[in-house]
Amino acid sequence: MTEALVNINGVISPPEEAKISVFDRGFLYGDSVYEVTQTYDHCPYMLDEHLERLWFSASRLDMPIRYSKEEIKKQIALTLKQLKSGQVYLRVIVSRGEGEIGLDPKLGVKNNLVIIAKDLPDYPRDWYEKGVGVIIADVLRNPIDALDPNVKSGNYLNNVMAMAEAKKRGAFDAVMLNSAGEVTECTTSNIWMVKNGQILTPTMGSGILSGLTRKKILALCQAHHLNFAETVIKPQDLREADEIFLSSTTKRIVPITKLNQQTLGDGTPGQMTKHLISLHDDLVEKQKKRDQELWAPVLQALGR
Amino acid sequence: MTEALVNINGVISPPEEAKISVFDRGFLYGDSVYEVTQTYDHCPYMLDEHLERLWFSASRLDMPIRYSKEEIKKQIALTLKQLKSGQVYLRVIVSRGEGEIGLDPKLGVKNNLVIIAKDLPDYPRDWYEKGVGVIIADVLRNPIDALDPNVKSGNYLNNVMAMAEAKKRGAFDAVMLNSAGEVTECTTSNIWMVKNGQILTPTMGSGILSGLTRKKILALCQAHHLNFAETVIKPQDLREADEIFLSSTTKRIVPITKLNQQTLGDGTPGQMTKHLISLHDDLVEKQKKRDQELWAPVLQALGR
Repeated sequence: MTEALVNINGVISPPEEAKISVFDRGFLYGDSVYEVTQTYDHCPYMLDEHLERLWFSASRLDMPIRYSKEEIKKQIALTLKQLKSGQVYLRVIVSRGEGEIGLDPKLGVKNNLVIIAKDLPDYPRDWYEKGVGVIIADVLRNPIDALDPNVKSGNYLNNVMAMAEAKKRGAFDAVMLNSAGEVTECTTSNIWMVKNGQILTPTMGSGILSGLTRKKILALCQAHHLNFAETVIKPQDLREADEIFLSSTTKRIVPITKLNQQTLGDGTPGQMTKHLISLHDDLVEKQKKRDQELWAPVLQALGR
Repeated sequence: MTEALVNINGVISPPEEAKISVFDRGFLYGDSVYEVTQTYDHCPYMLDEHLERLWFSASRLDMPIRYSKEEIKKQIALTLKQLKSGQVYLRVIVSRGEGEIGLDPKLGVKNNLVIIAKDLPDYPRDWYEKGVGVIIADVLRNPIDALDPNVKSGNYLNNVMAMAEAKKRGAFDAVMLNSAGEVTECTTSNIWMVKNGQILTPTMGSGILSGLTRKKILALCQAHHLNFAETVIKPQDLREADEIFLSSTTKRIVPITKLNQQTLGDGTPGQMTKHLISLHDDLVEKQKKRDQELWAPVLQALGR
């Protein structure tokens, strides 16, 4: 049985009772921001960084958040406390709130805070040992000057449509291009390639989310003197890549061994990808310790 | 007091009790379609055309609708029956439904149907007699190949951000441009201009919603042998226009007398705009009669 709880503005309930007003602007317009992380051993992973980005997204949408970061942490802790599982998927959503119907954001007068926590089983080992397949979607990524992909908002139809294409073509995920035909990102992860020993990933200018795992991998490349660059990548570059992989907070680094149903190289995860998975796994272990230290005072404040 | 009711999958409740699951994809991703119309004398205006467009939007998102049009009409009638007001704002939302969290649209297994009906007071006479002011927004309209503006979906942040710019600059609404710098539409209405006696409005190719009032006005122009064209319009054309106006189902035709805080012409609604308002008002009266005839069998089926 899946174990799950939802916290809405401090009220914790089982999923089937977790409801929000139909006048909430998150429901009417997708006028909300969100973050997803997970817990390891009952402790949220990189929560400070995720909350930092939540605030960044909100500021880009000119959305004041009536909760403090400390209050959100406390509500997360209260929710996790009631869950048996130590490894849970954690989604934090802040909507602009309810009000009279109308596009003017000033009508949303009071945020709704929704925390979804649910048991997160380990992902299939096959993803990591054999790799996954992606396609290049026909639907283009939203451009920066219309709806910046670097804002994590409740407007996700663009990605939903790309994912629908992926599923129809039997793929794990879809790579999205911008209007200049440049590679941007997958529907919920950043994308990387390796060519002649160099690690490449699209620049922020291509229109992507500044992924936290992306940042960690860039820092790892720097620390370990690996040859890397943030650059413009075209579909042709991906097709000619030696290795491809994707990165996300919950999935970490997943090797990609098929592009548009074509097997890449010998069809197995590449050496550099495996090297980075190993380096990143070590980093996650260090981060987990740091997270526990940062989480302890939050739990203490609850009197646990 | 505002009189309002919400019908969720056939259950009618007051607004404060109208709630939807936080797992609804409409709330999580804006993965929903919607239509807005109004009633005159307890009868929905152009409901068949609005439901037709709702189905069109859903088909573009590959979203099956588990309700029939007849069932939705019946639910609208049951809701209206409980309202005193004969003139109500009517919003019909169909979300892809609930399911496991994940972008794959197949996870949304059962639509949620939400009908919001609330008293609609007449709009201020000033809008029509003196005209309103619009600005040209910095944020660009979503492009057709990313998120087509001709799909009326729950992803409305793009328009929310443009409306926020309008409000900040003291304007009634914002005109949005596409990435080629062409005029598209306002945040919830189509835009028109008059130059040397010719009536002009952006082509569908500019990336706009195929407005039902827009269609009516085009038909009026044709029937009355007025000189008109669907064409590419640039901001400079708007600035040099003799008249500008906007059109929407509930607002009908509203003269625009200010652009970017600059007064247009003598600052009063133009002759052609007033002529079209008068022609369109006559058309609305005819449409109301047709609507009553179409609505009678729906009411009869309820045994009213």
